Amino acid sequence: MPLIAVHVIKGHDEAYLTTLLDTIHEAMVEAFEVPDTDRYQLLSQHEPFEIRALDTGLGYTRGPNLTIIRIISKARPESAKQRLYELVADRLATALGISGDDIIISLVENSDADWSFGRGRAQFLTGEL
Amino acid sequence: MPLIAVHVIKGHDEAYLTTLLDTIHEAMVEAFEVPDTDRYQLLSQHEPFEIRALDTGLGYTRGPNLTIIRIISKARPESAKQRLYELVADRLATALGISGDDIIISLVENSDADWSFGRGRAQFLTGEL
Amino acid sequence: MPLIAVHVIKGHDEAYLTTLLDTIHEAMVEAFEVPDTDRYQLLSQHEPFEIRALDTGLGYTRGPNLTIIRIISKARPESAKQRLYELVADRLATALGISGDDIIISLVENSDADWSFGRGRAQFLTGEL
Repeated sequence: MPLIAVHVIKGHDEAYLTTLLDTIHEAMVEAFEVPDTDRYQLLSQHEPFEIRALDTGLGYTRGPNLTIIRIISKARPESAKQRLYELVADRLATALGISGDDIIISLVENSDADWSFGRGRAQFLTGEL
Repeated sequence: MPLIAVHVIKGHDEAYLTTLLDTIHEAMVEAFEVPDTDRYQLLSQHEPFEIRALDTGLGYTRGPNLTIIRIISKARPESAKQRLYELVADRLATALGISGDDIIISLVENSDADWSFGRGRAQFLTGEL
Repeated sequence: MPLIAVHVIKGHDEAYLTTLLDTIHEAMVEAFEVPDTDRYQLLSQHEPFEIRALDTGLGYTRGPNLTIIRIISKARPESAKQRLYELVADRLATALGISGDDIIISLVENSDADWSFGRGRAQFLTGEL
């Protein structure tokens, strides 16, 4: 159910971007313990000047693999969120060599009534999900 | 006041996309009982590989008319949200032949202080709205 | 820490857009009293028909400089939000001649656990921020 918007800088090919989305999904499935079919992702590619990401003084260096991930999800425990951040960083390093310095994640929570997955129904309210 | 971001797959012409936005707006006006001038919409068109939408096991089939709608709104009762989901699906089927299987909606709520509609003012706080 | 998505209509050059992002950032730093390195911005440029913004009856006229700003932030007092709206409007008028009628802002709040600024860590939970 999480809806995930991924923002990257242009310059990567479709194979890279497909692996990026697949890997983020796999990390989310494991961290949030949701079914593999719970996949809703939107990718946006930006010109370099369209993305600005500094580091709030943390000492991180952002590069061309910068990946900003915005997640809308029902409430999750802190531990699941922390696990998600760790897994996304670990898996993207392994799959694509993306540095942990290049991964920024921001999450917003909503509620059961805030989702319709199709057919005009609110599946968390109807009991279908 | 809702701010609505609509995401579709490239391949539709401007007439289709205009009708899509108009129809979503009309459904929102009716379900949320807001004035017709309460219209704030952003459309993004994606390459097919930039959108991934499965079905969480619900048995829905997503096609090229897939439409993902993200809404930011002040709090609304569950009944209004459910009415919105129904109306969007019904009206898009009628107006454009879009299948209910192709419509995904996710809503996030915010508060009076979270909106400025222009001129640097927070109109829900100043009493202008 | 706020993550700011800025949406404009195509037709502005890179110098305009860079000044736009810089100016919004400066207003945010002052209104929210965050460090200058607390900068996370995404810009999207839309065809005219991809953005619809009316005025909820307020009597505002939207033009080609229309700028829709979506902010994700940890909780902020109402006064800071109102200050932000004022400063964004004042500064964009000065820097780029953008009318207050062309600036729409919508904010969504989240929590400490909802942010990872890199390296798979939740820096507001670890104490790094």
